[in-house]
Amino acid sequence: MSQKPRVVIIGGGFAGLSAAQNLRRAEVEITLIDRRNYHLFQPLLYQVATGGLSPANIAAPLRAILRSQKNCTVVFSEVQQIDPVQKLVHTSEKTYPYDFLIVAVGATNNYFGHPEWEKFAPGLKTVEEATEIRRRVLTAFEIAEKIDDPTLRQKYLTFVVVGGGPTGVEMAGAISELARYTLRKDFRHFDPSKARVILVEGGPRLLSMFPEKLSARAEKDLASLGVEVWTHARVLEIHDEYVLVNRNDSPIRIDSHTTIWAAGVKASPLSEILAQATSTPTDRAGRITVAPDLSLPNFPNIYAIGDMALILQDGKPVPGLAPAALQAGKYVARAIQAQLKGRKMLEPFRYFDKGSMATIGRNRAVGVSGPFRFTGRLAWLAWLFIHLVYLIHFSNRVLVLLQWFWNYLTRNRSARLITHSPTDAKTFERNPDKTSATRSSPISQMSTTGL
Amino acid sequence: MSQKPRVVIIGGGFAGLSAAQNLRRAEVEITLIDRRNYHLFQPLLYQVATGGLSPANIAAPLRAILRSQKNCTVVFSEVQQIDPVQKLVHTSEKTYPYDFLIVAVGATNNYFGHPEWEKFAPGLKTVEEATEIRRRVLTAFEIAEKIDDPTLRQKYLTFVVVGGGPTGVEMAGAISELARYTLRKDFRHFDPSKARVILVEGGPRLLSMFPEKLSARAEKDLASLGVEVWTHARVLEIHDEYVLVNRNDSPIRIDSHTTIWAAGVKASPLSEILAQATSTPTDRAGRITVAPDLSLPNFPNIYAIGDMALILQDGKPVPGLAPAALQAGKYVARAIQAQLKGRKMLEPFRYFDKGSMATIGRNRAVGVSGPFRFTGRLAWLAWLFIHLVYLIHFSNRVLVLLQWFWNYLTRNRSARLITHSPTDAKTFERNPDKTSATRSSPISQMSTTGL
Repeated sequence: MSQKPRVVIIGGGFAGLSAAQNLRRAEVEITLIDRRNYHLFQPLLYQVATGGLSPANIAAPLRAILRSQKNCTVVFSEVQQIDPVQKLVHTSEKTYPYDFLIVAVGATNNYFGHPEWEKFAPGLKTVEEATEIRRRVLTAFEIAEKIDDPTLRQKYLTFVVVGGGPTGVEMAGAISELARYTLRKDFRHFDPSKARVILVEGGPRLLSMFPEKLSARAEKDLASLGVEVWTHARVLEIHDEYVLVNRNDSPIRIDSHTTIWAAGVKASPLSEILAQATSTPTDRAGRITVAPDLSLPNFPNIYAIGDMALILQDGKPVPGLAPAALQAGKYVARAIQAQLKGRKMLEPFRYFDKGSMATIGRNRAVGVSGPFRFTGRLAWLAWLFIHLVYLIHFSNRVLVLLQWFWNYLTRNRSARLITHSPTDAKTFERNPDKTSATRSSPISQMSTTGL
Repeated sequence: MSQKPRVVIIGGGFAGLSAAQNLRRAEVEITLIDRRNYHLFQPLLYQVATGGLSPANIAAPLRAILRSQKNCTVVFSEVQQIDPVQKLVHTSEKTYPYDFLIVAVGATNNYFGHPEWEKFAPGLKTVEEATEIRRRVLTAFEIAEKIDDPTLRQKYLTFVVVGGGPTGVEMAGAISELARYTLRKDFRHFDPSKARVILVEGGPRLLSMFPEKLSARAEKDLASLGVEVWTHARVLEIHDEYVLVNRNDSPIRIDSHTTIWAAGVKASPLSEILAQATSTPTDRAGRITVAPDLSLPNFPNIYAIGDMALILQDGKPVPGLAPAALQAGKYVARAIQAQLKGRKMLEPFRYFDKGSMATIGRNRAVGVSGPFRFTGRLAWLAWLFIHLVYLIHFSNRVLVLLQWFWNYLTRNRSARLITHSPTDAKTFERNPDKTSATRSSPISQMSTTGL
């Protein structure tokens, strides 16, 4: 009995999952390896970070999605090494031989040479980061309620979002809405609408990938929500209690206990491992340079797709967006099937840009699609509709819609839970010498460490 | 201007929240202190632990619940000490004077002198414990998929639930359903229905508070779901890889990586602090002995209610159930208002037992109410209805209903997320000397520690 060709896919994000699903009718044996047991709808993580949605609303178990795809096996594991000569993928437990390899491990936060900023300014790439941001934002309001000194209180009511791309814009808008509407009547000792949300962007305008008019509109919409937009402002230092920013060439200190990082991403660490194993160049963000057919230049049976791949199209890199990842996954599935039939792919990969959007709180968004520009409520409804269509893998899409509809009507953010304080989590560690016998409260832990 | 009487309530569970809400029309100033920012519907935690519901489905922010109750201030803090002479409650940050004090801090897991069991056998009292159990149960299946040796694999497919009360019965039934139905088609290398779920009960029968006939029925229902019920079985030791049980007077070793503790509760630590400060006796489970009007014998202005209080009625303790806590909260609110008007309470507190229930997977439950007994689907529907009615504080009750209905139709458990591995959580610690620079995967962490 001849063995079917083996396709190993590393990563179950938009790119990897799309590749697996588009190979469902192929005569291959697929192994999809991910270190998470779920596919995550990353574009909505900011909703988890601000209590609008629960993690399970935007994450679906990979096994559930691929349950009836008989040619696909899901492996919950972390890849350690890739051997392109022997055609092997090594995890800490097992080794998986492949005939074709698709690497799609995505991106992580890029602190541009300042890894020490991470603990003061988490980014928005994982469920844990989103719930940690939620914990910090909500805890800051809770501490503010207990502080009598107005200056000190304002420090806890000042939120800095670094990076004026779509994630930063969405996050800043959502925090401001949380303060101004959701929490409006929740506190007795201060007015939550006095919270400052400062969006810090190094360049001359927000949403640099959009037309200038839309950037201006986004800035206006954010201002009407109470967000202070600082352009030409570069972060110099991030500390527990303040952020130092160079704004229009003079340094300003922002006293703040809560900073969120949305300033940039770089390829996940496995990209570097793959680059070294295959002698493939990477760009400054660690992205693998791929051939026009998305394979590695020296290894036609290895593909790199999604946010970890540098795909040049008309001299510009294809953006790290979900639609590009989905299209790349589909293309690679076709390319592999062509190779199996002894044919060459007819044409190189081409990203078809259907447009892009950013939402700025309820009823407001900006979007561009070809020659069309959208703003205001129409853009927001389009954003809502498109995101629901893309939640296609999620069996409970209707429930998410209802949750949103409910939140919309009531300005409710019911998932405002402060959970998993780092101190609490330690209780569950099994390594006996690390198990902490005393369990302190989230607050007392934060009092000693600043927030 | 004369100050209104100050009522401090410690704990926002069923008892404390009920007291606060029943004082809404009283001319008092209420301060509700909790170390969590949410009220938790504990009876449904087992649904979170098995991926059926998200934490936010069964937890509502205390501030949101009490938003429009103007005489109530919520404080997110942990109480350190109580001074009954000066009438002060001390937290780590502030001190709160009171005229009336209601202590309702609930219960925690009781390991009966074996605190070392906690890390191998978490209980079901908090959101963090529930998501930790979810992580362990789901990870055990994931590891089983990667193991080729059938004996070793079975170790990961064996789940021990300790304690045959309602929580243990519900948990054992839910894990078995998860394995037999939800995960049925999810794995390629083993049959999840081969999972063993062993429910270990020290006494002669399950659900000892129910009539014998219902215990027998619950046992039969569990058996039909594949749960092995071991009565007359006492846990001697719990380790990472096995549990030692004395069953019918002979020791048996169960090879298992996943143990869940549902064998008993004791009053939360603040109960002991209150007992010492007021020289009030406690019982073996640490519960405060209260007077017939729920006040402390020597301090008529201090009340202890809920699971931390020992209330004797007709010689038997009132059970630690949500309805009893709600009734006690309401009674104390009336008692305080009576005191304020210079009247004595007319009659001592009396728990009115409307009945109790335990559910055993979909379509099956047992219940008793006065002379009535319920079993099967009717009992299950009654259980569903009653729990929805009690989710009264939850604005998104309809959404929870829809989620359940969806889960019921599809046997779906969409919240099957493996999150917050202890190793990941450490990344967010801010104390610099503790911050771990390397982040290992959930699996590699677990490989080294056994699960």
